[in-house]
Amino acid sequence: MLTLYYATGTCSLASHIALEDSGAIYEAKRVDFSRGEQNSPEYLLVNPKGRVPALATEYGIISETPAILAFIAQSYPQSNLAAVNDPFQFAKANAFNSYLSSTVHVAHAHRRRGARWSDDPAVVQALTIKVPKNMADCFDLIEASMITGPWVMGPVYTICDPYLFTISSWLEADGVDPKKFPKVLDHRNRMAERPSVKKVLAREHA
Amino acid sequence: MLTLYYATGTCSLASHIALEDSGAIYEAKRVDFSRGEQNSPEYLLVNPKGRVPALATEYGIISETPAILAFIAQSYPQSNLAAVNDPFQFAKANAFNSYLSSTVHVAHAHRRRGARWSDDPAVVQALTIKVPKNMADCFDLIEASMITGPWVMGPVYTICDPYLFTISSWLEADGVDPKKFPKVLDHRNRMAERPSVKKVLAREHA
Repeated sequence: MLTLYYATGTCSLASHIALEDSGAIYEAKRVDFSRGEQNSPEYLLVNPKGRVPALATEYGIISETPAILAFIAQSYPQSNLAAVNDPFQFAKANAFNSYLSSTVHVAHAHRRRGARWSDDPAVVQALTIKVPKNMADCFDLIEASMITGPWVMGPVYTICDPYLFTISSWLEADGVDPKKFPKVLDHRNRMAERPSVKKVLAREHA
Repeated sequence: MLTLYYATGTCSLASHIALEDSGAIYEAKRVDFSRGEQNSPEYLLVNPKGRVPALATEYGIISETPAILAFIAQSYPQSNLAAVNDPFQFAKANAFNSYLSSTVHVAHAHRRRGARWSDDPAVVQALTIKVPKNMADCFDLIEASMITGPWVMGPVYTICDPYLFTISSWLEADGVDPKKFPKVLDHRNRMAERPSVKKVLAREHA
């Protein structure tokens, strides 16, 4: 059995939804960030980075959202969550997820996690200023050149969709009006109607 | 045939080395950052992000280092650059590369690319201060819990190795003494002796 370590309101939502979509038998364990559980000795044995998500498998633990999502797609091929045997199509999905992880999530993180990059409170505060522009720039590119439609990769739902849904849910809090990105907003609305998404959100917010 | 778009001194070195290792027939095209070629209309048609690497294939273009590296491993299985048919082992390799991309490279980028996150020159300057500590913290984790040895994933050389080599080559410029990380330094030295690495470095610096 798989165990997903997640925290409500974080990027671990993407892996949580993908697990639900995959049909895998899994347990979801909440890591309570409000109590600093991500830095507890117990959790650091799971993920020495002190971050979520982490996925415990019978072989060992995997972290990093793009890697977990690719693992889910490859481990449950019957769920058709990525074209895992087509190197180009699989790479396109992995590239989209890598962009979300290394550019879009990073742009977002400068709003509340600026202390990662500066110990000066004034600098940390100053880093929040450009977040709306950077997030809007990222979503301009996603809207114009990355969403094939109706799902990210085209007609078939993939591991890219729960990850985009997770990060596009942060737009308002990051000071960006999602109405500027009609494809992204349509995608977010259709994601919110999926039973797997409703089930996972209910569990995370219970 | 494949065409790799690279720039000397950037993370595209990882994909360049992996292509050389793979036995693929490819062409390497330099994008001259000193002339701003990454933002030229011609290059933006290749990669609308204005970044390197980008890999043109017969099917289309892939960007993002972790995705390109996984594509190379999956497209040239005879080169044995990752356990592409073992979802867990492939995920471990992808997770390592994702960490380099979304955390370590991002930590490094705050030294010279701070303008991505602030338009205030004083803030951009202030972002350089924590770079040595953040890079050292990342490499503490890599040294203690990620390098299996002698290669990143263990006895077999994989797509993780050229990427670690690329980023560990930045340590001195980022104000970190690589001697603090004996496994990383040993890895870097052994990488530098590989014919594929010598060949690619000679080409990039010609």
